[in-house]
Amino acid sequence: MASGERRPPYYLGIDLGGTNIKAGVVDDAGKALSSVSVETLAEHGPDSGIDRLAEAAGRAVGESGIPWADVAGVGLGSPGTMDLSRGVLLEPSNLPGWDQFPIRDRLAERLQKRTVLENDANAAALGEHWVGAGRDSNSLVLFTLGTGIGCGIIHEGRVLQGRHSHGGECGHMIIQADDGRLCSCGRRGHLEAYASATSLVKRAVEALAEDDAPSLLRDLAPAELTSLAIDEAARSGDALASRLMSETARYLAVGAVSVMHTVDPDLILFGGGMIGAGRPFLDEIHSRIRSLTFAILARAVRVEYAELGGEAGFIGAAACIRAAVGGRG
Amino acid sequence: MASGERRPPYYLGIDLGGTNIKAGVVDDAGKALSSVSVETLAEHGPDSGIDRLAEAAGRAVGESGIPWADVAGVGLGSPGTMDLSRGVLLEPSNLPGWDQFPIRDRLAERLQKRTVLENDANAAALGEHWVGAGRDSNSLVLFTLGTGIGCGIIHEGRVLQGRHSHGGECGHMIIQADDGRLCSCGRRGHLEAYASATSLVKRAVEALAEDDAPSLLRDLAPAELTSLAIDEAARSGDALASRLMSETARYLAVGAVSVMHTVDPDLILFGGGMIGAGRPFLDEIHSRIRSLTFAILARAVRVEYAELGGEAGFIGAAACIRAAVGGRG
Repeated sequence: MASGERRPPYYLGIDLGGTNIKAGVVDDAGKALSSVSVETLAEHGPDSGIDRLAEAAGRAVGESGIPWADVAGVGLGSPGTMDLSRGVLLEPSNLPGWDQFPIRDRLAERLQKRTVLENDANAAALGEHWVGAGRDSNSLVLFTLGTGIGCGIIHEGRVLQGRHSHGGECGHMIIQADDGRLCSCGRRGHLEAYASATSLVKRAVEALAEDDAPSLLRDLAPAELTSLAIDEAARSGDALASRLMSETARYLAVGAVSVMHTVDPDLILFGGGMIGAGRPFLDEIHSRIRSLTFAILARAVRVEYAELGGEAGFIGAAACIRAAVGGRG
Repeated sequence: MASGERRPPYYLGIDLGGTNIKAGVVDDAGKALSSVSVETLAEHGPDSGIDRLAEAAGRAVGESGIPWADVAGVGLGSPGTMDLSRGVLLEPSNLPGWDQFPIRDRLAERLQKRTVLENDANAAALGEHWVGAGRDSNSLVLFTLGTGIGCGIIHEGRVLQGRHSHGGECGHMIIQADDGRLCSCGRRGHLEAYASATSLVKRAVEALAEDDAPSLLRDLAPAELTSLAIDEAARSGDALASRLMSETARYLAVGAVSVMHTVDPDLILFGGGMIGAGRPFLDEIHSRIRSLTFAILARAVRVEYAELGGEAGFIGAAACIRAAVGGRG
């Protein structure tokens, strides 16, 4: 798949998701030399999961043309919860039954390679810092907007993991202390409960039920009412859809500003499926951020979309093992 | 003032406030060898301010019995806004007319000592980390509860200054995105607008105006209606005062939890005048935090009061120059 110059050493990055495992070999310049996807089959349990991870790894290395011996190590990005220092999954909500699973050491043993475990959103943030939209920044925050809101913080060039592997869980910052919406985690008022793709759709369903005002969204079957369909309706001039998108931008700005007033980064990035909404959505988030923060930060902090797209997960995971092997963070 | 063993080197810590300048010589074990206070007379402007700072410095050194030559450097804590890397006050709201003032270099020149500038709340947090309630923790967040809400974050043993000197401005995290209360900074929904001593009093005044329900607070003259008077009424069993204190604890917990879900520290500290409310108030904050955060963090994160009290400012400032001189952070 790859062509042109390859810069050793090579890293194997693996992005473990509830549905699919994506993997690829990445060279030292951050170029993906292969990209494969296999089903996780999470319901078969963690032992089967190690088989699936090994299959993804084998196919990624095979496709890259790099000999296994030249793979310097393995980075594994996973959804939480986890204990990063021990490399153990705790109670990962997207991987039911994988509780208390020492995934890092099990995979290292299977692949006979040094392996690091990282939260998937943290890994994506490190990937953007390495070769994506954050390559010029030493201090950034990435929000990934999908079913939930993931977040990763890069502080002074390194992942801010926190003392209990909960650094950068900014989707669960409380943005509404009184009368907050219910979050998928069971608590109230979290950013994710307002501004994830899922929450946008929920707010749309509620708004449609509130009155009979005309809206393009009423023509959609429930399965068609997605965040991108709402965005499309907004672009067609639909008033309700426009309001919903605008509110989403405002809630994201609220979350971004609270992080800015806490870790004060150079750069705020947004990634994930919802960035299909394109430049106008980003511009509205940015404009809201400027109106909600201090003048100095309004001028200085950049707000951009992430760049790595579907490969962010495994490139980020590769960045994690690269940092560990090379002492780069 | 000091007795017993003194451990060199010695540091001069200065805490610049809108009303008073506090200063003291601190030894390498964090012991204050002197403690003085002079009026800031901020309205006389920054040139006069340098005279006042020099007077405080001279008296602190004189009282300590340490020769000037043995003072290793000067730490200056100041209210914001500021540019820490350049050592310049920008538009400090408590020091009107001191805008764009290169206070660090001016003071260094005057005292002929290496001088570092730090945000006062950041300095207090570093002081607690050095010799206060955070001495066993490498990663803590301090909220100081007074007229406003100051905040300092210690991450991996160092002050998290941020890229634009706005790290740890957590009093201005947005905890209420919709219909937020007005903050002293002019923006809405900030933690400070709900849970500072000033905001507690404002909420009390509003609550008293809402209805005619009996309350001990009605017996107080406006000048007597302070946060500590509200706490006292709550301890006497007054229903309204109890509700106000309880709500304040909940808002503080909301702010603490959002920081916990961002930088994930070991320890949350509360300092400032409001901690006169004592152990029951801290216990309620802690209980609210446990109910609002993830199970792992509810178990693992300690919640305590700060310990350094009125000397926190200059001891923290001394900690900053100690860190700079000794490479300790």
